[in-house]
Amino acid sequence: MKRIAVILSGCGVYDGTEVHEAVLTLLALQRAGTQVQCFAPDRNQMHVINHLTGEVMAEMRNILVESARIARGEVKAIAELNVAEFDALIVPGGFGAAKNLCDFAHAGTGMHVADDVKQVCRAFVDAGKVSGYLCIAPIMLPQIVGAGTVGTIGDDVDTAAAYTLMGGQHQSCSVAQVAVDTTNKVVSSPAYMLAGDIGEAAQSVDALVDKVLQLA
Amino acid sequence: MKRIAVILSGCGVYDGTEVHEAVLTLLALQRAGTQVQCFAPDRNQMHVINHLTGEVMAEMRNILVESARIARGEVKAIAELNVAEFDALIVPGGFGAAKNLCDFAHAGTGMHVADDVKQVCRAFVDAGKVSGYLCIAPIMLPQIVGAGTVGTIGDDVDTAAAYTLMGGQHQSCSVAQVAVDTTNKVVSSPAYMLAGDIGEAAQSVDALVDKVLQLA
Repeated sequence: MKRIAVILSGCGVYDGTEVHEAVLTLLALQRAGTQVQCFAPDRNQMHVINHLTGEVMAEMRNILVESARIARGEVKAIAELNVAEFDALIVPGGFGAAKNLCDFAHAGTGMHVADDVKQVCRAFVDAGKVSGYLCIAPIMLPQIVGAGTVGTIGDDVDTAAAYTLMGGQHQSCSVAQVAVDTTNKVVSSPAYMLAGDIGEAAQSVDALVDKVLQLA
Repeated sequence: MKRIAVILSGCGVYDGTEVHEAVLTLLALQRAGTQVQCFAPDRNQMHVINHLTGEVMAEMRNILVESARIARGEVKAIAELNVAEFDALIVPGGFGAAKNLCDFAHAGTGMHVADDVKQVCRAFVDAGKVSGYLCIAPIMLPQIVGAGTVGTIGDDVDTAAAYTLMGGQHQSCSVAQVAVDTTNKVVSSPAYMLAGDIGEAAQSVDALVDKVLQLA
């Protein structure tokens, strides 16, 4: 039975993990007969967004604690992620990936991947294990994997340009296509960067999970 | 194209809508080619639970605002739900159904369904339209629909006894089975009352959505 680590970044598209992408990932992994463990950074979110109005709320929430809403409590701190115990890694998207795992949402191409995230994600590459990144999460690949890393964030011109400027090799994809960096065993797909509805998001997630498990 | 109203009760199994059940419902409805609109009460949750520890947190959250995390912002206040605009209703489960839509979680068989919820849910029955209730949400059926209403909360003896004591006719179901009250066009299925994993939850949700759309 393949063991898959999933890294969450909160609960909600505007300040955390995109909820549909995370749930669809867990569903696809369960149906494929894998064993899944969720992880998340144990620190505060960048901020809290009112998902009804889009406004910043005057409060603070912890990424790990909010991620537990998606994982039904079954989530561990990212510091506990031992790469040796897993066959593959998947990172769903949502603004949490661009606000809590790295700071691309406000720093643009001057972004940094958080140390705890970079260390763990890099370890999968160094161990020759496969990793999958959904939606905006692949924006971290040039920093995690290195220059020339093949990845997709769909077909958005500005985000693709940012990916290229940071040293990555961007591959334009439709929603149900995956980009594969065969050298580093990194798979990416656009999910809600392109999906117009939850059915398209599921196609994108399913394609990524299929390819990740094929390579794992 | 059939139009389906979905009533959410927050975001997270222990104080709101069960996230997987809600997302799986939205996925099944989208794949069936329906048009979906989410609704939720615009008032505070009973309380906020830390989903990592299970403890009550010293803060307050609004049911509608938190439900927007599942609905990607596309949720309206339940007061705006006009039954004439929809062909069917679905209410996912999670403790939110038993804490925010009614107070079964702490009042037991002395529970009351919240007025705003009762009025809207009852209107679907009065209009001869189909409604579907997942997980613990069917516990509201005896009060919403009336004595003798057929429903299931799975096979838990205590909860089934509570359902019966409040006047309902409980039908024991396995996770992928649905109970159907043909007189009132009410469908229910156990979802995470019985599901051991997200794949079983999906079977339960899919069975309910299939039956609801067949009757709608």
